[in-house]
Amino acid sequence: MDQGTVALRILGIDPGLANTGWGIVESAHGANRALAYGHISTAADLSRPERLALIHQGIVEVITRYRPREAAIEAVFFSTNAKSALSIGEVRGVVMLAAAVQQIPVDEYSATQIKQTIVGVGRADKSQVQFMVQAILKLDHRPQPDHSSDALAVALCHAQMRKAI
Amino acid sequence: MDQGTVALRILGIDPGLANTGWGIVESAHGANRALAYGHISTAADLSRPERLALIHQGIVEVITRYRPREAAIEAVFFSTNAKSALSIGEVRGVVMLAAAVQQIPVDEYSATQIKQTIVGVGRADKSQVQFMVQAILKLDHRPQPDHSSDALAVALCHAQMRKAI
Repeated sequence: MDQGTVALRILGIDPGLANTGWGIVESAHGANRALAYGHISTAADLSRPERLALIHQGIVEVITRYRPREAAIEAVFFSTNAKSALSIGEVRGVVMLAAAVQQIPVDEYSATQIKQTIVGVGRADKSQVQFMVQAILKLDHRPQPDHSSDALAVALCHAQMRKAI
Repeated sequence: MDQGTVALRILGIDPGLANTGWGIVESAHGANRALAYGHISTAADLSRPERLALIHQGIVEVITRYRPREAAIEAVFFSTNAKSALSIGEVRGVVMLAAAVQQIPVDEYSATQIKQTIVGVGRADKSQVQFMVQAILKLDHRPQPDHSSDALAVALCHAQMRKAI
């Protein structure tokens, strides 16, 4: 019986004021492929509201172009300080808004969950995650910059968790 | 010579996930009046992206209705912890976005600056600020909830600083 195509299209996002990575992963029957990925960079000489507007607009365009059904973002747990938490929060706010307005649910995963899912070890280092992202998605080179690789990693983590549910 | 009306319309915002206060102050020739104020409350059983979308939409509507020329928001300096900084950052992000998209510059003022400007004492307590907001704007009752009073306070602080420049 033909079950039709049931690919789940997932948007992964690695938020940052200077660089926000994004990646679209299509997941079906246990296989994952990278449909597209990239990043949004904003100039340091712009005001913070202007930079947030560029990031928001960039994510809105990605959603409009690729129509993901679900989104995933890295949860922040606070080894980081309050000042960087505020800044990352501002970016997360506009990114989650872009998804919410289009009725796309956003799930959050800790760095440990992402590493555990992608590498199999919660304490894996960043380069191991990047290596596995490239291997799982059969990419002929490592996604650059790191932000887009990290965005694909969180999308892959979400794909894996969805199967587990 | 008639200089015409040069009232500056300022949007003040006190951002918070549960309650975001807003206030519109019109400032001309050293006198300030409250054109309108209010707050946006979001239900705790909604997802964070949904709550951020409601806050963003609320601020967009305030801007559309009252057409402020400038906006002001309280800067966060971190007596607060990283977790609440992240949450407040998310709200600040969608609020600053609403202003940026309509080319409204957003200035930030510390709690100390606001107290110094409104009460004359940087270490004034919250109720003194609320009392002075009511007195300066000649309101016949204290704005409720506190969030809208705090939003008017930051708008008044901006009005005062603009005169000083």
